Amino acid sequence: MINRFCKMPLWECTKTLADVAQGRTSADVVITGAKLVNVCTAEIQENMDVAISCGRIAYVGQADHCIGDETLVIEANGQYIAPGFLDGHIHVESSMMGAGEYARAVIPHGTVGIYWDPHEICNVLGLEGVKVMMDDAARTPLKAMVTTPSCVPAVPGFEDTGSSVGPKEIAESMTWDGVVGLGEMMNFVGVVNGTDHAHGELAETLKADKVITGHYSIPENDRGLNAYVASGVRCCHESTRAEDALAKMRLGQYAQLRYGSAWHDLPELAHAITDTDIDTRFAHLVSDDTHPHTLVEDGHLDHVLRVAVSCGIPPIQAIQMVTLNVATCFRMDNELGSITPGKCADIVFLDGLDTLNVTRTIIDGDVVAEDGAVLFPLGSYGYPAWVTRSMHLKDEITPDSFAVPVPAEAADEDTVTVRTIEIIPGKVGAFETHVDLPVVNGKLESSLAQDVLKTFVFERHHETGTYGVGFTKGFGIQRGAMASTVAHDAHNLLVVGTNDADMALAANTLIQCGGGMVVVADGEVLGLVELPIAGLMDDLGAEQMSKKVHGLEDAWAQIGCAMPSPFMTMALIPLACLPELRLTNRGLVDCTKFEFVDLFV
Amino acid sequence: MINRFCKMPLWECTKTLADVAQGRTSADVVITGAKLVNVCTAEIQENMDVAISCGRIAYVGQADHCIGDETLVIEANGQYIAPGFLDGHIHVESSMMGAGEYARAVIPHGTVGIYWDPHEICNVLGLEGVKVMMDDAARTPLKAMVTTPSCVPAVPGFEDTGSSVGPKEIAESMTWDGVVGLGEMMNFVGVVNGTDHAHGELAETLKADKVITGHYSIPENDRGLNAYVASGVRCCHESTRAEDALAKMRLGQYAQLRYGSAWHDLPELAHAITDTDIDTRFAHLVSDDTHPHTLVEDGHLDHVLRVAVSCGIPPIQAIQMVTLNVATCFRMDNELGSITPGKCADIVFLDGLDTLNVTRTIIDGDVVAEDGAVLFPLGSYGYPAWVTRSMHLKDEITPDSFAVPVPAEAADEDTVTVRTIEIIPGKVGAFETHVDLPVVNGKLESSLAQDVLKTFVFERHHETGTYGVGFTKGFGIQRGAMASTVAHDAHNLLVVGTNDADMALAANTLIQCGGGMVVVADGEVLGLVELPIAGLMDDLGAEQMSKKVHGLEDAWAQIGCAMPSPFMTMALIPLACLPELRLTNRGLVDCTKFEFVDLFV
Repeated sequence: MINRFCKMPLWECTKTLADVAQGRTSADVVITGAKLVNVCTAEIQENMDVAISCGRIAYVGQADHCIGDETLVIEANGQYIAPGFLDGHIHVESSMMGAGEYARAVIPHGTVGIYWDPHEICNVLGLEGVKVMMDDAARTPLKAMVTTPSCVPAVPGFEDTGSSVGPKEIAESMTWDGVVGLGEMMNFVGVVNGTDHAHGELAETLKADKVITGHYSIPENDRGLNAYVASGVRCCHESTRAEDALAKMRLGQYAQLRYGSAWHDLPELAHAITDTDIDTRFAHLVSDDTHPHTLVEDGHLDHVLRVAVSCGIPPIQAIQMVTLNVATCFRMDNELGSITPGKCADIVFLDGLDTLNVTRTIIDGDVVAEDGAVLFPLGSYGYPAWVTRSMHLKDEITPDSFAVPVPAEAADEDTVTVRTIEIIPGKVGAFETHVDLPVVNGKLESSLAQDVLKTFVFERHHETGTYGVGFTKGFGIQRGAMASTVAHDAHNLLVVGTNDADMALAANTLIQCGGGMVVVADGEVLGLVELPIAGLMDDLGAEQMSKKVHGLEDAWAQIGCAMPSPFMTMALIPLACLPELRLTNRGLVDCTKFEFVDLFV
Repeated sequence: MINRFCKMPLWECTKTLADVAQGRTSADVVITGAKLVNVCTAEIQENMDVAISCGRIAYVGQADHCIGDETLVIEANGQYIAPGFLDGHIHVESSMMGAGEYARAVIPHGTVGIYWDPHEICNVLGLEGVKVMMDDAARTPLKAMVTTPSCVPAVPGFEDTGSSVGPKEIAESMTWDGVVGLGEMMNFVGVVNGTDHAHGELAETLKADKVITGHYSIPENDRGLNAYVASGVRCCHESTRAEDALAKMRLGQYAQLRYGSAWHDLPELAHAITDTDIDTRFAHLVSDDTHPHTLVEDGHLDHVLRVAVSCGIPPIQAIQMVTLNVATCFRMDNELGSITPGKCADIVFLDGLDTLNVTRTIIDGDVVAEDGAVLFPLGSYGYPAWVTRSMHLKDEITPDSFAVPVPAEAADEDTVTVRTIEIIPGKVGAFETHVDLPVVNGKLESSLAQDVLKTFVFERHHETGTYGVGFTKGFGIQRGAMASTVAHDAHNLLVVGTNDADMALAANTLIQCGGGMVVVADGEVLGLVELPIAGLMDDLGAEQMSKKVHGLEDAWAQIGCAMPSPFMTMALIPLACLPELRLTNRGLVDCTKFEFVDLFV
């Protein structure tokens, strides 16, 4: 596809680039004396210069002849330079920041481009919401390449969202300048079963000659995976076992090895590389979901690279997985992903291949970040008011809203058995577990002894008044309640808690502030992150967001939860495209069979 | 770009493929029990089945569930299967056969697709001639993917051709269904010097989002090569030294390691792989020019693979170089180049990775060749009459036409020094050598003692009456003369010989038969290959053509030349885009400086 993410199309500047390479014209920028990470040949080339003009690389070698009076000379002093990092699968909304602030946060860590799926905002505000985020992103140098959300709702028929997307919307979006593909096709069941809706979206993407990105999250690597790959899905970030990633690569699908704030799949997946001797060109490293705390404390793809190297993946191969391999997946390797002549001049400086600290980021030939800070101006975006009014619940929420009556025939039992969602710390999956809960006055309550919490999901988009009821096991909290409007992917109002009063307080706190994440206990708000933009984001910088999220994590710890980023794990409770059991505003969903199931076994 | 070379677009059959993978619908074809050469991971997978439907791969694994009553089951019996071979740079005309017969010759050797540059016929008959060949090719299953000839004439201003191509023609051709890129940009001087003509052609190709193929034939790997690559040229088959190929790969240009009938560069180039530890994804194996004799006796890419392996390149890597690496270069790896779900079902069977003999070729799911013979019908194409009338010389040619008078001031000298083209057996290059020739009656003659032959190039397209005069060293012949209308790239009438009478006979023999290649001696025709189609090809099968060419080679041997395929080396004498000295119908050209030079030093 034509790359619309470089400063100048190549066809407008081939002559100038040739002039610079030959020394007839001075370069805009020359980098001198670098150790070049050559991702094409997987070598380190010592003492290399790079000359840049028109935002593109004109020459790689010994570039004295490209330097003129006006040329900016950057002395690498023996630092490494690598192609700018590309994240092949990312949701900006997980950072809880707008796209502009997200760019400000990741660019100093070497990220020059993201293939982003803005499906969180799309679930709440539709493609109009996506356009607002694209507009925000366009204020920054980050190459924010959109894959249009394919699964809005995530699993049609199982939840209520603020908007919906189908083949017609996909076809329309493929004509937009910033769209390079289809967002993660989470409806793998629809794909493997051949539904019109799913295949209609695939077809519109293929007709536009763009790339389909995937989400195949079950540990089945035979018929289902083959059907999924045969349908044109080119990459997938949902492997959690090394054998799954290996199976995908063998079938010619790019395996996107994930290391997000809460999904730490990479150490396991790295065995697909380190335990074998395979060609690794079909592997990526992706972050998927990164919260602001991680961006501030650890970084972005630089952090993922460090983890990869610590897992035994050789540094050059790891760097290929965030550069050339990603560009090739999106068939944009003619423009991105390597420090070679003609390509966009997207370059990162690294202090070493062991430390992998990014000291400088160049995008389209402009130095856009140095020593951790961006060098471009970025004011507040000013999200329009309609984007910040997204809490549309029908009924008032009170403690009584959280009553869970048992069926009449069980009212006299001592206990009843309920289907419970058992979370897995650090993973996106959740098990279905059966738990016996005591019946008290014909109703069920949370059981701290069994670490089982009452869980509600209230529809918040169209005042339908619908809600789902279930139980969750595994958070370890001992008091209070949590609520979140970040509740994938419909982003309805999710409430989990130990008692009805705190649950009502948590819910109402978010309704009042326009959405966010909150922890309460004993009638008091312990931690609150307001997310007024669609109930998903705020237009603050990463430092501020991180501080707020830290406060929230502290509040989680205060009430007894020791997990990393527990709010991210909680936010997946409604995500019906992940195994095994999930709760949406319409009820409990068996996500292996895709059918509603009763709370009571 | 959208692939127009598969039986069915993927968007029309994703549902069917999913159905087959899941076992809901039977496959058209199932291959069972194969050793799969997995080019994605560079592994051999034992005992694999492949299910095919709609011309595409639906499933890879254990495919019993895909077999129905109507399914064609092909038992591999432990043979290897690999993706069908793709030749990233090829001129069909070098085979001296029409495109249909060429397809018939190469498909049994595992070739399923060619990226061909029909610049020979284009030089003679223009893009209308190209269309005729495309029409011929379309009768066969071969994926004949055209790169539009970019350099017609090869080096503007230095020769006269039958037609010319510029940016306007390139832009027009990019809208044709069968065109996937720009043919080899031999005018690398124009590219590195920034001429409008060359850069205009590059721009039109880039605007159409297609791939520019290259030809950078000088041993300069610094400023010039950088300028060339920066201008968007994605591959190059003209490396003759390992360091050149390595330099190209390091700059992100695909190095196409060549092994044609007469250009045996691969053994030297293989050192770029075998002496290093580089990632080889930027390497291809290509044939460039293969004559019918080679196709019949040795094969096509299967033969090149065998040579590559004999040079120490591991078989799986070598196979990647004629499959996935080629498809990726042309940004068609989503459709071609691997045996993975969704891709075109282009598959070859190999009896072993040491022998690399192709026993069966499948294209788009159809078995199109088995045990050396094609299984599709192919009659005579019936080239239109205008294509077979291409000998348009102005003046009658007689022995007197070949007189070479010395300048008046040298008429009394014993000898004069002449610039002589010294050929290099097995290479496309030629040196400039200075030779002292005796002056006899104020004229020069060939010198058998010094192995130096009189050489003439007569314009044959537009009756201009122009001709060039020079001398060639190195063929070793002792009597007679040769002539050829295959005389790159203008394909004027080239005559080389020991004496004027035989030279006239050779020339007139070709004028009478509509073009071809001939060897004469002592007033007798010893060998003749008639090539009535544009003076370049005949519509015969490879066996017949091979026999005729064998006869010609025998004739060369009779008059004293022991080189392999000397007629192919001779045919490059006029090719002004190759170093160092060449002779066109306009005169001697210094091909390092691109200027005409005098015969006399």
